[in-house]
Amino acid sequence: MRLSRYFLPVLKDDPAEAQIASHRLMLRAGLVRQEAAGIYAWLPLGLRVLRRIERIVREEMDRAGAIELLMPTLQLADLWRESGRYDAYGPEMLRIRDRHERELLYGPTNEEMVTEILRAGVGSYRDLPRNLYQIQWKFRDEQRPRFGVMRGREFLMKDGYSFDLDEAGARRSYQRMFVAYLRTFARLGVKAIPMRAETGPIGGDLSHEFIVLAETGESDVYCDRAVLDLAVPPDDVDYGGELDPLIHAWTSLYAATSDVHDAVRYEASVPPERRLRTRGIEVGQIFYFGTKYSEPMRARVTMPDGSARALHGGSYGIGVSRLVGAIIEASHDEAGIVWPDAVAPFGVGLINLKPGDPATDSACIHLEHRLAGRGIEVLHDDTDARAGSKFATMDLVGVPWQIVVGPRGIAGGMVELKRRASGERIELTLDAAVACLVEGTVGKDAP
Amino acid sequence: MRLSRYFLPVLKDDPAEAQIASHRLMLRAGLVRQEAAGIYAWLPLGLRVLRRIERIVREEMDRAGAIELLMPTLQLADLWRESGRYDAYGPEMLRIRDRHERELLYGPTNEEMVTEILRAGVGSYRDLPRNLYQIQWKFRDEQRPRFGVMRGREFLMKDGYSFDLDEAGARRSYQRMFVAYLRTFARLGVKAIPMRAETGPIGGDLSHEFIVLAETGESDVYCDRAVLDLAVPPDDVDYGGELDPLIHAWTSLYAATSDVHDAVRYEASVPPERRLRTRGIEVGQIFYFGTKYSEPMRARVTMPDGSARALHGGSYGIGVSRLVGAIIEASHDEAGIVWPDAVAPFGVGLINLKPGDPATDSACIHLEHRLAGRGIEVLHDDTDARAGSKFATMDLVGVPWQIVVGPRGIAGGMVELKRRASGERIELTLDAAVACLVEGTVGKDAP
Repeated sequence: MRLSRYFLPVLKDDPAEAQIASHRLMLRAGLVRQEAAGIYAWLPLGLRVLRRIERIVREEMDRAGAIELLMPTLQLADLWRESGRYDAYGPEMLRIRDRHERELLYGPTNEEMVTEILRAGVGSYRDLPRNLYQIQWKFRDEQRPRFGVMRGREFLMKDGYSFDLDEAGARRSYQRMFVAYLRTFARLGVKAIPMRAETGPIGGDLSHEFIVLAETGESDVYCDRAVLDLAVPPDDVDYGGELDPLIHAWTSLYAATSDVHDAVRYEASVPPERRLRTRGIEVGQIFYFGTKYSEPMRARVTMPDGSARALHGGSYGIGVSRLVGAIIEASHDEAGIVWPDAVAPFGVGLINLKPGDPATDSACIHLEHRLAGRGIEVLHDDTDARAGSKFATMDLVGVPWQIVVGPRGIAGGMVELKRRASGERIELTLDAAVACLVEGTVGKDAP
Repeated sequence: MRLSRYFLPVLKDDPAEAQIASHRLMLRAGLVRQEAAGIYAWLPLGLRVLRRIERIVREEMDRAGAIELLMPTLQLADLWRESGRYDAYGPEMLRIRDRHERELLYGPTNEEMVTEILRAGVGSYRDLPRNLYQIQWKFRDEQRPRFGVMRGREFLMKDGYSFDLDEAGARRSYQRMFVAYLRTFARLGVKAIPMRAETGPIGGDLSHEFIVLAETGESDVYCDRAVLDLAVPPDDVDYGGELDPLIHAWTSLYAATSDVHDAVRYEASVPPERRLRTRGIEVGQIFYFGTKYSEPMRARVTMPDGSARALHGGSYGIGVSRLVGAIIEASHDEAGIVWPDAVAPFGVGLINLKPGDPATDSACIHLEHRLAGRGIEVLHDDTDARAGSKFATMDLVGVPWQIVVGPRGIAGGMVELKRRASGERIELTLDAAVACLVEGTVGKDAP
C-alpha cells in the first residue's frame, strides 16, 4: 500500500481527551475516530488490526469445534421478557421503538436470541452438544464512556454459546472454551491470565475472566507469579480428550480480581516472593449458567426415553475491539505502538528517503513487489515528507519491521532493516533484507 | 464439516409466509431465521454464503483502488442536521434516544459520516482523490418488510464514497466503480445490467442501478438484448487508464427501469427482435452528486493557489445480504438452490450412504481429508438419515458438487460424482473423483 494513496490521518499532537496510552495512540496513529461518546469509526489502519484479531479468534473457535453464525444487532423486547431480563437489565440496554411502535433493543449480549434459535433448530438429544458463536457489534449504553475503545458503547465482541444435555457436558464445553481462550490470547501476543470471577447479569455459578496485566487496567488483580510461567496448550491440543489436568494447572494457582479476592487464602497459598498485585484489563469472560435461559424459554430436547430435557448452557465472550486497546496498553513505548507480529496492520513499513530519485524509487518498488509476492503486506511511505517525520510516523503506527531505503545506501546496494520492538538496526543488501523477511523471520520474535 | 456436528436446521415444509422462491429456500435450507419483521439471524450455512460474497466484493473494491474502513452503525442526529437530511429522510430512518436523551439514529447510509471523516483527515489537494468503502450492517425501517432478505430492515451493504477535486475527477471515480461493479457481479455468478436510474434521497444528477434479471424482481425493466452479450472487463483492466470506451459500450445500449423508461427512445433505438421487457432485482446503485454534502458540511481542501475547494463526491452501494436472495432467484430449480461455484457455502457435499459400515466410513473420511488438504471445503453428511432424505437435503442446500459413497460402490472402488446444476452423474474411482475436483474442475462451470 502506497502511503500517498492511503488514508492515514495521523495527529501531530496528543488529543486532550485521551487519559490512557492506548486511547491517545489510537487517535494519534489514525486507527479510529470518535463519532459520538463511546462510538468510533475504524479508520483503515485500525480496521486492519481489528480484522487480524478477528481472524485469530475465529480460527481458535473453529479449532475448538464451535460453529459461526451471525445474529442481528436489533432484538425484540419480547424475547428478553421470556427470560425476565428485559426489566432487569437497566439503563445500559439501548431501548428502541420502530415506526410501528414495536419495542426493540440493540443487543448488549445474545443469550436469549441464541436460545431461541437452538430451541427452533434442535429436537432430539442427538442434536447436542452444540457450540455456536458470532463476531458481532453490540451496544451497551455506558453511563460514562471513556478510555477510547476500552470502554466504548458500540463495540465488537465474539460471543459464543454452548448447549449440552447435562451439567457434566456443559462443564466440558466450558473447559474447551477455557483452553481455546488461553490459545487465542497467546496467539494475539498478550499474556491473559484466567481469574475466577463474579457472574453479574449473565448469571450462573461458574465464571472466569481473562485479564491482560497492565498498570492502566481498570481492575485490581492479585496473583501467583507462577501463573505467568505456565505453558499455553499447543495447537494440536485434543479438545475431545481429558482437559481436567490442564485446567487444574491454571486454576490451582491463585489469581483473582479484587471483586472476589480472598486475602486469607492469598496469603496462605502464595509465598510472599511470588505475590503479584497489579492491575489488569478484562479481555474475555466465560460463564456456566446451566438452565437459567433454557428453563424459562422452554428450550428442550427429547431424550431416548421420550422425556424432555432443558439444555445446559454456557456463554463465552471476547472483547474484540477492546483487545486493540488492551494490546496497545501492553505493548507500546515513548515513540508509539509496538504491534505483536500476529496483529500488526502491515508486516513491513518501507521508507523511501528520497522519492523522485530513480534508483531509490526503483529499489522501493522492487522491494514492495517482492514482499507482496510472498504474502507480506507493505506500507510504503512514498510521500514527500521529511525523513524525520517518516521515521516518527512509522514508529508511531508500530509496524514490526521497517526497511529504510535511501540514495546513499542504494548506491552501494544496501538498505537498512529495523526491528520496531528492539530498535535494533542492521545494514543489508536488498536481497538479504528480502530473504530475512521472507524466510520465516517476519512473524517470529527477533531477527 | 460433519453434518452430525453442524447446525443446519432444514425445514421439511414450505414456510407459509414466504411468497418468493429465495425467501422460501433460504428458510427451508437453514440459511436464515427471522427474528423480527425484516430482521434475520444468519445461520451457519447462510453466513458462509454472505462471507463469500463479501470477499469478492472486497477484492474488487481493493483492485479498483478503494480503501476499506468501518463506521459505527449508530450516528449522531446532529451530523445529519449539517446536511439537512435529518428531517428530510422520513420514517425509514430509525431514530433513537440514548440514556442521556441524546438523539442518535441507526445509519441507513453514510454520506454525512464519511464526509465528516474526510473533512477531519485531509487538508490539501495532494490528499485527493480518495475512495473509502465499508461492508456494514444498516437499518431502514421499511413500512412493510417482505421477501425475506430482499427487502429486510437490518441488512448488509457495501457502501463506498469517492472524493475528488473536481467534476472531471469525480466522473472518473464513478467510471471506475461502474467497471468494478460489472466485474463484481460477474464474479458472483449473476448477470447484472447497469441501467440509468433516478437518484432519490442520495441526490445528484447521475446514477445507475445494477439489475439482476429475474421474473420475481420488484422493478419492471426494458432493455436491448444485445446488452446481455457484452464482455465483462477482465481482471487486468487498467483503472488508471481511459475507461470511456468501455463505459460507452455498456451505456449506449438501451436499458432502463420503469421509473425512467422512455418508450419513444426505446422503440426508436431498439429493433423489435432485440426488445426485452422483464423484471429485475436491484443489487447495486452508484451516484455522482458533486458537492451536495461537502458544501453544507464545509468539507474542503486547500488548492495550490491557497484557495479552498469543496470536495466532489459520489457514492456506491451493493446490497450484500440482498444478493444472497437475488442469486437464489436467478439460480434455483424444483429441488432447491443451485449455487454458483464462487459463492457456494461448501465446494463439495459428501454423502455417506451407510454410516457405520467400516469401508464406507473410511472412504468418506479419506475423501474429506484429501479434499480439505487441497482447500476444498466439504459438507460431509455422516448422519443416519435415509438415503433419499440425504439426497434431498444436499439438493436443497445446493452444494455445486456431490460425491455419493456407498458400500456397493466402494467394494468396487467406485464413488458417484454429481453436478448439482445439470444433474449429470458419473461413476469414478475414488482417486479420479478427487483428481476431478482438485485439478481445477471445482470452481469451473462443468465437469
